[in-house]
Amino acid sequence: MLSGRKKALKFDEIGEFGFIESIKKDCNTTLNDVIKGIGDDCAVFGPYSGRVLLFTTDMLVEDIHFLKAKITPYQLGWKSIAVNLSDIAAMGGRPLVLLISLAIPAEMDVELIQDIYKGMKNICEHYKINIVGGDTVASPDKLIINVSLIGDAKENEVLYRSGARPGDSIYLTGNVGDSFAGLNILKKEIPSTKSIASHFIKIHNEPKPLIETGMAIAASGLANAMIDVSDGLLSDLGHICKESGVGAMFFKSKIPISSELKLLASRVRFDPLDFALSGGEDYLLLLTVPESNIKDFEMLWKDKVASPLYLIGGIRQKKGIKMVNDDGSIEEIIKRGFNHFSPSFLDT
Amino acid sequence: MLSGRKKALKFDEIGEFGFIESIKKDCNTTLNDVIKGIGDDCAVFGPYSGRVLLFTTDMLVEDIHFLKAKITPYQLGWKSIAVNLSDIAAMGGRPLVLLISLAIPAEMDVELIQDIYKGMKNICEHYKINIVGGDTVASPDKLIINVSLIGDAKENEVLYRSGARPGDSIYLTGNVGDSFAGLNILKKEIPSTKSIASHFIKIHNEPKPLIETGMAIAASGLANAMIDVSDGLLSDLGHICKESGVGAMFFKSKIPISSELKLLASRVRFDPLDFALSGGEDYLLLLTVPESNIKDFEMLWKDKVASPLYLIGGIRQKKGIKMVNDDGSIEEIIKRGFNHFSPSFLDT
Repeated sequence: MLSGRKKALKFDEIGEFGFIESIKKDCNTTLNDVIKGIGDDCAVFGPYSGRVLLFTTDMLVEDIHFLKAKITPYQLGWKSIAVNLSDIAAMGGRPLVLLISLAIPAEMDVELIQDIYKGMKNICEHYKINIVGGDTVASPDKLIINVSLIGDAKENEVLYRSGARPGDSIYLTGNVGDSFAGLNILKKEIPSTKSIASHFIKIHNEPKPLIETGMAIAASGLANAMIDVSDGLLSDLGHICKESGVGAMFFKSKIPISSELKLLASRVRFDPLDFALSGGEDYLLLLTVPESNIKDFEMLWKDKVASPLYLIGGIRQKKGIKMVNDDGSIEEIIKRGFNHFSPSFLDT
Repeated sequence: MLSGRKKALKFDEIGEFGFIESIKKDCNTTLNDVIKGIGDDCAVFGPYSGRVLLFTTDMLVEDIHFLKAKITPYQLGWKSIAVNLSDIAAMGGRPLVLLISLAIPAEMDVELIQDIYKGMKNICEHYKINIVGGDTVASPDKLIINVSLIGDAKENEVLYRSGARPGDSIYLTGNVGDSFAGLNILKKEIPSTKSIASHFIKIHNEPKPLIETGMAIAASGLANAMIDVSDGLLSDLGHICKESGVGAMFFKSKIPISSELKLLASRVRFDPLDFALSGGEDYLLLLTVPESNIKDFEMLWKDKVASPLYLIGGIRQKKGIKMVNDDGSIEEIIKRGFNHFSPSFLDT
């Protein structure tokens, strides 16, 4: 979908400065604290007192993280910022400003790049954040997008991967595996009807990072550790365990899987649990809450968040991740996380 | 120089996480205000009160901004951060923390990437800044480096491109054109002996951003506008004029050209002024100072900076950039700045 238009203006016909002029408008959606956005050597914003800054970056490379034919330019723009927002959500932070670096093949249509920016500007408007600059360069062949995002938070509210303690309950904020189903449908590794396909593809291509949810959890002070589910549930739970020096046990029956995924799996004959545990790119939140806070936490959730919440297991002193099967038997789980270098996980 | 070693460990053999482990050490050179560096979803640092943040990014793409055979891995690492530091210097800011995104071809030697990081870590140590995270991904073919850098400054000290006023004097902090000579020697468009070549290539591949100088200028409050010379003197002077809504006049005889460049030019028969005016990547500072501050400014320079300073011309109400020739005649200069999309300016 990133190709195929004819007679359109080409990127090398307007050049870097012409292009920046063409995308400058609407990059600031909240101007109050941006002193200088696009148009100087650096963006200038703030000052922010008594808060810490959060700073994150993600690079999306054509043919590695996306295939031009499998994502619309609008979705690509949306997603390139969404993945960064999810990192801020994972710390309980408030996103503020971002920079966009683009390496663009000379023969690429300008309209298409502007469509990418439309997706970027829409997600910025949605989350009330500002594009304050970036770098636009030529690329010999592939389209490359790098987004760097700054957020902030109250220092004592930030939630790290390293905070999990034995006895904590492990919560997940939504169904896992749908995004990976979308990826497999896009890659035609799973056959699907058009209407079913669009459900899963939308989840994969237009993730909705849980900023408000992350901030509510952080502000409550009730959780011990948090991460976003981007590499895959097992892999990300593994990150929490490793950084916290603990282990975990979870119940197979408690892993939240959507009815749509179950239906698709029964038709196409794959195990939806595989997708749920190892798929990745769900952009949900995975967090741990100590025993003493569980009542307050579940009450807070009901009152303030009102979205799904799943208790899937608990943190243990003993290292390793174990799964409790439906019959009560316990098996050691081999970490099967998202691997950017594995072609079988080629992203779209 | 980025290729050619045999039997070395390949990047896809250790993967993203293995690689991150291998480069994690020494990424923080000043730990005091970094609460969390590499190892979580976001870096956390600060808080900084009463100051504004500066945020900049630059992307370097193989075969566009550098050629593997023309720069050492160490230099590539150094330069990828130097170009960002120069943007902070241009605002008069203090650099603080940075994120590095790398897209790495699977068959690339790990040792080579570690050499890139050596250059990165050395420049960070030199400038007392911290690498606090990043993103490491696979690339289908080219090596891509994106650096995002945060700095800060006192709000009323930040120097913008837009501050130049008619009557200001225009200063330059060093010789221009040497970097472009280095580029042309690397591309074999200029023949050169080995010792002469190494002088110019080092300037091109290992720029020294003028952080201290920029901070001293900003703290003095004596300048009106500043920019770093990265696109080329004319192009960057053009940026100041455009953003300030003014014009400029400069003296041909006052453009600082090194004796090395003059000698090379006389031997190879090119006009060193072309290189000086349009070459780019000098990473010097170009600034304007109002009449009333000139005495204090030149005194400050003598006392605190003690590096070269060249008065090259003045800012005028009337738009456009004019050059005064040695015979007193005046010619309108066509802006011939660095164009990232022009193959004749292909960077190394």
